[in-house]
Amino acid sequence: MADLLIKNIGKLVTPLGSAAVSGEEQGRAHVMEGAAIAVTGGKISYVGEQAGAPDAAEVVDAGGRLATPGLVDPHTHMVFGGFRQNELEMKLAGVQYLDILRGGGGILSTVRATRAEGEEELYAKAADFADRMMRHGTTTVEAKSGYGLDLDTEMKQLRVISRLSREHDIDVVATFMGAHACPEEYKDRRDAYIDYVAEEVLPKVVELGLAEYADVFAETAVFDIAQSRRILSAAKKLGLGIKIHADEINRIGGAELAAELGAASAEHLLQASDAGLDAMAESGTIAVCLPTTSFNLDKNFARAKLMVEKGIPVAIATDFNPGSSPGYNMQFAMTLGCLKLRLMPAEVLCAATLNAAAAIGRAASKGSLEAGKDADIVIWDAPDLNFIFYRYGNNQVYSVIKSGKVIV
Amino acid sequence: MADLLIKNIGKLVTPLGSAAVSGEEQGRAHVMEGAAIAVTGGKISYVGEQAGAPDAAEVVDAGGRLATPGLVDPHTHMVFGGFRQNELEMKLAGVQYLDILRGGGGILSTVRATRAEGEEELYAKAADFADRMMRHGTTTVEAKSGYGLDLDTEMKQLRVISRLSREHDIDVVATFMGAHACPEEYKDRRDAYIDYVAEEVLPKVVELGLAEYADVFAETAVFDIAQSRRILSAAKKLGLGIKIHADEINRIGGAELAAELGAASAEHLLQASDAGLDAMAESGTIAVCLPTTSFNLDKNFARAKLMVEKGIPVAIATDFNPGSSPGYNMQFAMTLGCLKLRLMPAEVLCAATLNAAAAIGRAASKGSLEAGKDADIVIWDAPDLNFIFYRYGNNQVYSVIKSGKVIV
Repeated sequence: MADLLIKNIGKLVTPLGSAAVSGEEQGRAHVMEGAAIAVTGGKISYVGEQAGAPDAAEVVDAGGRLATPGLVDPHTHMVFGGFRQNELEMKLAGVQYLDILRGGGGILSTVRATRAEGEEELYAKAADFADRMMRHGTTTVEAKSGYGLDLDTEMKQLRVISRLSREHDIDVVATFMGAHACPEEYKDRRDAYIDYVAEEVLPKVVELGLAEYADVFAETAVFDIAQSRRILSAAKKLGLGIKIHADEINRIGGAELAAELGAASAEHLLQASDAGLDAMAESGTIAVCLPTTSFNLDKNFARAKLMVEKGIPVAIATDFNPGSSPGYNMQFAMTLGCLKLRLMPAEVLCAATLNAAAAIGRAASKGSLEAGKDADIVIWDAPDLNFIFYRYGNNQVYSVIKSGKVIV
Repeated sequence: MADLLIKNIGKLVTPLGSAAVSGEEQGRAHVMEGAAIAVTGGKISYVGEQAGAPDAAEVVDAGGRLATPGLVDPHTHMVFGGFRQNELEMKLAGVQYLDILRGGGGILSTVRATRAEGEEELYAKAADFADRMMRHGTTTVEAKSGYGLDLDTEMKQLRVISRLSREHDIDVVATFMGAHACPEEYKDRRDAYIDYVAEEVLPKVVELGLAEYADVFAETAVFDIAQSRRILSAAKKLGLGIKIHADEINRIGGAELAAELGAASAEHLLQASDAGLDAMAESGTIAVCLPTTSFNLDKNFARAKLMVEKGIPVAIATDFNPGSSPGYNMQFAMTLGCLKLRLMPAEVLCAATLNAAAAIGRAASKGSLEAGKDADIVIWDAPDLNFIFYRYGNNQVYSVIKSGKVIV
């Protein structure tokens, strides 16, 4: 007797396995018609023909609809103070980002707002985002610090993330990103700021177990390759997994550094070199593509098809943050995965489930519909996988099941 | 004593007037803080300071949120059989549209499906779309025929549209578009098909009062300028307003024809010439921009900023149809209005309300929040207008009031 049975699934589509997949494997979804899924103790206990499914205490009728794994969003900055809608008209009028920054706007205005906001307030706001994400199909999310840029506020952000993972239905994986930008206090003293982050903030974060990963914004006028290597090496030595915002605006060798250090993932990669991508394929580093950011900033899109061809496991995320990507809807990121990254529907599904889970160390328990994995499942208001990419622009979730609990 | 009072509106933003506005006027929204709106007999009876508002039988508390006019979607093909998600993978694999068409797909597959589907089935499907549109803020919509391409099916589509306007809360304006494509029966006999539409179908449509407008797809390999002029002139003579799908793929003089015939609107206009736009400004023809179609087909966007500069009233629509634009969400079209057409938020609001209403002959009764107009109102989950363009990707509607009735 299972706890929950999802019956009458018209099409079940899922990647398979417990690790990131790449190359042709990324596009090889497992498809089953007329399936059922049973859940016991929050985990999937049966996936197969409806006829062989166990009885259950609770039954959800999928009504012939599509079922996929719950979506995993492996790159967000979802804990922040304020919003930045006031910058929209400036941007449309052609004011450059650096001028907005000089005028007190941009990321540093979010840093001021995040420092000023109370922990309860930040939590309530993040929990509201988490509610909304789940209603749009996201069952696991990564969240970065990096709007504090000082010990107290970075810790405050990380405590909010940790509390969210404990108290909210959504699962959250924490990444420490003290090296997200250089704060005003350290203006023109970037090396000193990196020293501060590496020697004072990072050890405290690790001591309190507040993060699983560390990330850095390696970019011209932010942190150079040497500074990025320094902070990531320190994090690695302390046992954290590592990630890197690499080659987003300028080709400075971020992809190469990700491979050199054996990073779990490299993010953005709009300008990554062929050699950098080859090195990532070699090191097994996952490429986390952020197409909503390209969309919002009117930039080029990452060369995702080439990445797949080179054998790099590709993941997709929203990059949700108050500046460059103010939306948290993975469905839109996935639509862009097809229409703009030109990946096939099955490749995009894998990018938003199994490979996304792998990018945050959860491929063993999430990202596919298989017995033994967490029962994180989306039933779609759609008959097949193509439909959810084709019919973009509205929330196509019919039902969300998280750890076996029916959320929507 | 009013029927309904919407109180505690944080910001009320609306264009003003009973006709399309253009140039600088398009960007000049009326903004009011701390406002209230009263509704009597389905019409707005008061817009102003909360202190002076009348008592009402029912009260909606906007909770400090943003209020705008209900959205008007002035260009859709929302009555159709089937869906075409099966073409997505072909498109992504690089199969050209004309090859899909030759293989029995594309618009002609929708024509077959629409001919085959029963009138009740078509109605139920369209009514479901209308429900969804309203939940996303659209309170008035234009709907075109043009998936029948024979007398019986065109009439069937138009009867569905007419019934939708009568029985559904949404308001629908019907456009006859028998000249949407050349049906297989008339292959290589386009002139004969235009004769058939002009002489047999159109008079019947007018006789039964099933449409207010006629539209034609003027395009290379569809209908040329002479054929388009022929059908639109016939429609005009019979008293219909006219519209034209102009210069979408190739610059064939569609904008010029729209101006020559005094069309109410010209649609798409991606390739419209400067001279054609000048002529449209002169004739007062509204430009209906369809940015979701450009987004979906990976094409360029219409030169909307130039249109505004030239004094053309600009409207925005979804182009909702099962092929080139499979989404019905005006919010996404509006976001693209800012991010891709590069219009300012106030210009986009006007494009999606007053100018959209004007494009379908409803500017006297819809498209702005003013006493005497229909009480079609959206309350947004947002504090100001910038916010709804900035926070794209999820449905930002908080409440929809249609003819004074609270729908959401």
